[in-house]
Amino acid sequence: MTAADAAAPGATRTAVLLSDGRELIYFDDEPGRRRGEPDRRGLAPVARPPSQLRHDRLTDEWVVIAAHRQGRTHLPAVADCPLCPSGPARETEVPEDYDVAVFENRFPALGVPAVGLPAVGLTGPGEGGPSASGQARRGDRAGPFAGQPGDGRCEVVCFTADHDASFAALTPRRAATVLAAWTDRTAVLGRLPAVASVFVFENRGEEIGVTLGHPHGQIYAYPFVPTPLSAMIRVARRLGRCQHCEAVAAEEAAGARLVASTDAWVAFVPYAARWPFEVSIYPRRHVPDLPALDEDERAEFPSLYLDVLRRFDRVLGVKMPYIAAWEQAPVRAGRRWAHLRLRVFSNRRAPDRLKYLAGSESAMGVYVNDIEPEHAASLLRAAAC
Amino acid sequence: MTAADAAAPGATRTAVLLSDGRELIYFDDEPGRRRGEPDRRGLAPVARPPSQLRHDRLTDEWVVIAAHRQGRTHLPAVADCPLCPSGPARETEVPEDYDVAVFENRFPALGVPAVGLPAVGLTGPGEGGPSASGQARRGDRAGPFAGQPGDGRCEVVCFTADHDASFAALTPRRAATVLAAWTDRTAVLGRLPAVASVFVFENRGEEIGVTLGHPHGQIYAYPFVPTPLSAMIRVARRLGRCQHCEAVAAEEAAGARLVASTDAWVAFVPYAARWPFEVSIYPRRHVPDLPALDEDERAEFPSLYLDVLRRFDRVLGVKMPYIAAWEQAPVRAGRRWAHLRLRVFSNRRAPDRLKYLAGSESAMGVYVNDIEPEHAASLLRAAAC
Repeated sequence: MTAADAAAPGATRTAVLLSDGRELIYFDDEPGRRRGEPDRRGLAPVARPPSQLRHDRLTDEWVVIAAHRQGRTHLPAVADCPLCPSGPARETEVPEDYDVAVFENRFPALGVPAVGLPAVGLTGPGEGGPSASGQARRGDRAGPFAGQPGDGRCEVVCFTADHDASFAALTPRRAATVLAAWTDRTAVLGRLPAVASVFVFENRGEEIGVTLGHPHGQIYAYPFVPTPLSAMIRVARRLGRCQHCEAVAAEEAAGARLVASTDAWVAFVPYAARWPFEVSIYPRRHVPDLPALDEDERAEFPSLYLDVLRRFDRVLGVKMPYIAAWEQAPVRAGRRWAHLRLRVFSNRRAPDRLKYLAGSESAMGVYVNDIEPEHAASLLRAAAC
Repeated sequence: MTAADAAAPGATRTAVLLSDGRELIYFDDEPGRRRGEPDRRGLAPVARPPSQLRHDRLTDEWVVIAAHRQGRTHLPAVADCPLCPSGPARETEVPEDYDVAVFENRFPALGVPAVGLPAVGLTGPGEGGPSASGQARRGDRAGPFAGQPGDGRCEVVCFTADHDASFAALTPRRAATVLAAWTDRTAVLGRLPAVASVFVFENRGEEIGVTLGHPHGQIYAYPFVPTPLSAMIRVARRLGRCQHCEAVAAEEAAGARLVASTDAWVAFVPYAARWPFEVSIYPRRHVPDLPALDEDERAEFPSLYLDVLRRFDRVLGVKMPYIAAWEQAPVRAGRRWAHLRLRVFSNRRAPDRLKYLAGSESAMGVYVNDIEPEHAASLLRAAAC
């Protein structure tokens, strides 16, 4: 048995290893629980995933090629769910009952074998590699076929052992434990030399492509800074002020798109919303990432976020598919210009209609939104529990 | 009856007006056909669509808000198809039989009433509006809620009167007429003062959100330059050479991702393909847009494109959903750095599996591709007719 090995703010943390060497970390709502039930599956040690990063020189962006994921688990029956706790009848990815469990993805888009942390074996930034100098001028040095192994890390975050629950159904206490897990992973993964940006997100609903029904989110630790993050930093730097801070102030003054707020947080439909239902959740304070949140911000987040998610599920009278995406400052570059934001958006535009990313969105990046943001906000305001 | 009023290269062109004032243009495979069957529906004159452009100041991008489209025609029964020619029993969007018919979208994301061309009533670039100075520094002048009416134009391009056909089933002669129509519309719409960029595309298949089954494509004439186009121009300008020309030469030398070619055109899976099946089709010559193609390039395109589309439909043994997207030079800025490209890509990764744009793609712009580009190319090469 392993005793809790560290305390994440707001939860108790215990790290163990799965039988193939992947790391599993329990985050418990309350201290005092002993952990360490072994993984009895006797899996072969994980190999370095054969994924590749390829540089699209035309646009100066990185693409992940992960052919090994083609055979990943796809919508298994509930009785075969790999995210439920192991029981007498079968072994899963999690050896025992849990509150929140985080582990390395068995079919990672990015990753290297990392036994323990700091992740032994993670390569440093190679010459010409994506993390060598951030985004700037990278394309200048490489040929037309610049690539490198898909270093980084992909983790799965199970929000509850209850297969049939959802994030919106969690207690505020449990949502605080999830926040503690997200915070811990952002801090730990951000210290890995290969990692440039930590992306914490949840895909919910088969309509947006979820392949496992168990309530869970994911973490992608990228070895480069994704384009939307660099674009936002570039704009803020050029204008000399945080555009998120300005948006928060302007939206509070305008009022028409507000959805919910607390002392420390505010949630609104952005003026230029791309999706039929989209909410930006901000700490009012200019904070770069989850580890930088203070105690009050941590304490207030769970009830605000649960409120927003419950409004999503009520606004059209059907369970909503959604993507919840934390925009965090890159690990090293441009941090002072970044402002933590949680974007929650759905591709459902009516009880029987989805929004698709077709030609304009997928090829030109131009979103056409069929619902006026002020209308979406008024529907969400009316969808209180 | 109206005689042909102009000749688009490779087709005969006749423009008429629908009963609500929208323009309809026939492109005929052969000259000599007289056109002018009236629209007998007696529709009320079209009003300016209530769409809005909103500037996302955080990323310096424009979003189209088009709430009136929420009620657009959605998967009608074949007998109610608005794109089939009118007949004795009912009136549609096209008053008579046709080869290729182009008309203003009745539910446009962008548009102003324009009777005849040059489009009377299209507003010029307003102070602070998106086309005033292209992309650069636009955000500096506007407040947090910068917007303007959704000027521009959206057109529907019907490829054939045969409801059950597809682009891949067209004759080369008909594909040449479609190319002539695309070329004509690019030239004509590009002369409108409000238009900064003309995007010609086809969405095919309900799996990517097509709401009308009749074989058709669309044209969006945007009043700004979409982000991927400006990104490509920025990279080429910085490096001092066209990265598309370099990619064409490098792919031909490498060979592993080639799919098909003619003297003037080459088709390959790009090295950093974002989609499971994705092909870039290029004129080898450094050409900015469709109107700049020469006679040989026009003559060779139909057979090459039909070959690629037929490979798509054979590669997995199922009819493939796809997006076909022409990347063209902006109308005014950066033209020398742009290189015409037709991207064709599918969201089908297996006969029974789709690729979804979930968190990594939709929120961070980072694509994870489950099929190695070299493998996709070998499958497409083997899928010859």
